[in-house]
Amino acid sequence: MATDAALDQQEFRKALATFTTGVTIITGMAPDGTPVGVTANSFNSVSLDPPLVLWSLAKSSRSLAAFDASPYWAVHILSADQDALSNRFAKSGADKFVDLPVETGAGGAPLLAGCAARLQCKTTFKYEGGDHIIFVGEVVGLDRSGVPPLVFHGGKYAVATAKTDALAFSDGAVYDAESSFTENFSGYLLARAHFQFYSQLRAHIEGAGLSDSEYFVLSVLIIKEGRSIASLNALFSYTGHAITPALVAQLAAKGLVRTDGAGVDALCYLTADGRTTTVRLIVAAKAVEADMMAKFGEWETVSLKNLLKQFILHTDPGLAHPWSA
Amino acid sequence: MATDAALDQQEFRKALATFTTGVTIITGMAPDGTPVGVTANSFNSVSLDPPLVLWSLAKSSRSLAAFDASPYWAVHILSADQDALSNRFAKSGADKFVDLPVETGAGGAPLLAGCAARLQCKTTFKYEGGDHIIFVGEVVGLDRSGVPPLVFHGGKYAVATAKTDALAFSDGAVYDAESSFTENFSGYLLARAHFQFYSQLRAHIEGAGLSDSEYFVLSVLIIKEGRSIASLNALFSYTGHAITPALVAQLAAKGLVRTDGAGVDALCYLTADGRTTTVRLIVAAKAVEADMMAKFGEWETVSLKNLLKQFILHTDPGLAHPWSA
Repeated sequence: MATDAALDQQEFRKALATFTTGVTIITGMAPDGTPVGVTANSFNSVSLDPPLVLWSLAKSSRSLAAFDASPYWAVHILSADQDALSNRFAKSGADKFVDLPVETGAGGAPLLAGCAARLQCKTTFKYEGGDHIIFVGEVVGLDRSGVPPLVFHGGKYAVATAKTDALAFSDGAVYDAESSFTENFSGYLLARAHFQFYSQLRAHIEGAGLSDSEYFVLSVLIIKEGRSIASLNALFSYTGHAITPALVAQLAAKGLVRTDGAGVDALCYLTADGRTTTVRLIVAAKAVEADMMAKFGEWETVSLKNLLKQFILHTDPGLAHPWSA
Repeated sequence: MATDAALDQQEFRKALATFTTGVTIITGMAPDGTPVGVTANSFNSVSLDPPLVLWSLAKSSRSLAAFDASPYWAVHILSADQDALSNRFAKSGADKFVDLPVETGAGGAPLLAGCAARLQCKTTFKYEGGDHIIFVGEVVGLDRSGVPPLVFHGGKYAVATAKTDALAFSDGAVYDAESSFTENFSGYLLARAHFQFYSQLRAHIEGAGLSDSEYFVLSVLIIKEGRSIASLNALFSYTGHAITPALVAQLAAKGLVRTDGAGVDALCYLTADGRTTTVRLIVAAKAVEADMMAKFGEWETVSLKNLLKQFILHTDPGLAHPWSA
């Protein structure tokens, strides 16, 4: 590692990007009553007693005069779904507050809604910091919502989740890393997570007298009817489940599906009974999901869904989609 | 939101915990040559030109005298697997550097290995910050490793991954949120991710003339042999795959498994051929994983595995474990 008086600015930015942060919007009120607000990830805590926090504002910022003149400002720690709000306050120029519901905080600083936490502050120190001014303020009021916070990680908006090193089950079963490739193998983790979820749902599917394959057919017909047996089969072939005329005939015999045409080109529709049965199973599936996610945690659920979507997108071999096929 | 001059310190801590950060270790060298180091998540960037960063050190810290006396210090932005190192430097007292390989940085500050990034700095300003001192330093050297960084989120070590709002596929297929519960349903995402992965592996399994159920049996026998058919069935019942004497007889007929005993109590062992076939499939599975994870990204893979483990642990209904059954 070479030290270098003429530090490469791009390299400096890249190194800084490895430090993950939350995302905040800092708001204030200019003496003339104009609200100001900027997106900042340079926020951090300083002191517990007195309660102090800091953030840095570019000397070139249009909002500098307002924050310089008015001692009160509010830090909004953004929630995971506030990336659009972050983008809005990251741009300079236009009225950032248009159509936003705001409350009035200490010293007139506008308070935005839907954040993970809000800290109302009064400037204690303003410090020189190169091309930025460091604002240190005492926290005079705060609130918290419990919603998962937005994260800025590797130059992108992100979500975070608690770290787990090993699968240590409550019954004391511990994986022996020497004996197998299993525990840390992505394929095992995906399969186990899927089947662990699905096994709860299967109780309802079996209760309705259906096989997994039959449930799959119903679950996509309720999204879009009039699919051919061939297209249903194409949709599910990657799961290892074959959708055949015989399978659809079973569903027809149960009074759940009707067909139009013959062989694999026959088009499939739900009967009224089929629709009722499917809606009931979807309600049961949502209940299973709600129960599982309550055990798993709200923050973790946001992260899991996010990550599974990423995985599905990045490793998609070109599979058909249930909502477009 | 009430403002309150006597701010509740626990509430202040909880509000601060919603702001996610990376984790750093700051090291320095006392004038007597003793290395010092502290874990800090109060690090942040300040200025690009000149390149300035800051962090805060408690006035009560044993290391304050050293950082106060020596102008050089090094910021280590920790990698995702350095939580133990973070814990080591978060405690006061003992020799934190014992058995650690270190290089010597600018001004004698020790440089630790294995970090996401390292910034060598020289103090520019020391500022008053309540019960902390704010150190602002100019970055005089840096390096980066490309490994995923450690995150501190909600009071715990965490990993983060880029945020995705919608499943927008490259072929233009976009989910219609009005038509179905599918796209954002955890069960769908888990199933799709699992089967998308597994379908790549299935090509190899079918190439070896095996069904999914047969592969499942082989994959756990190579971890531990001498399992009964009943125990194999118990292990896989949550997947919807039944492990029966007939299935095991098929594997025996293929020369891959031999049994000892009769019925569901028969104990199962791999033959030499069975072992070879299974090892080949495991190698293929690892190759599928490596290929998928290369598409998905290293940071994301760490996060995905972490999150699936969390999910499996938190929603485990008490399933048998392949490595302990």
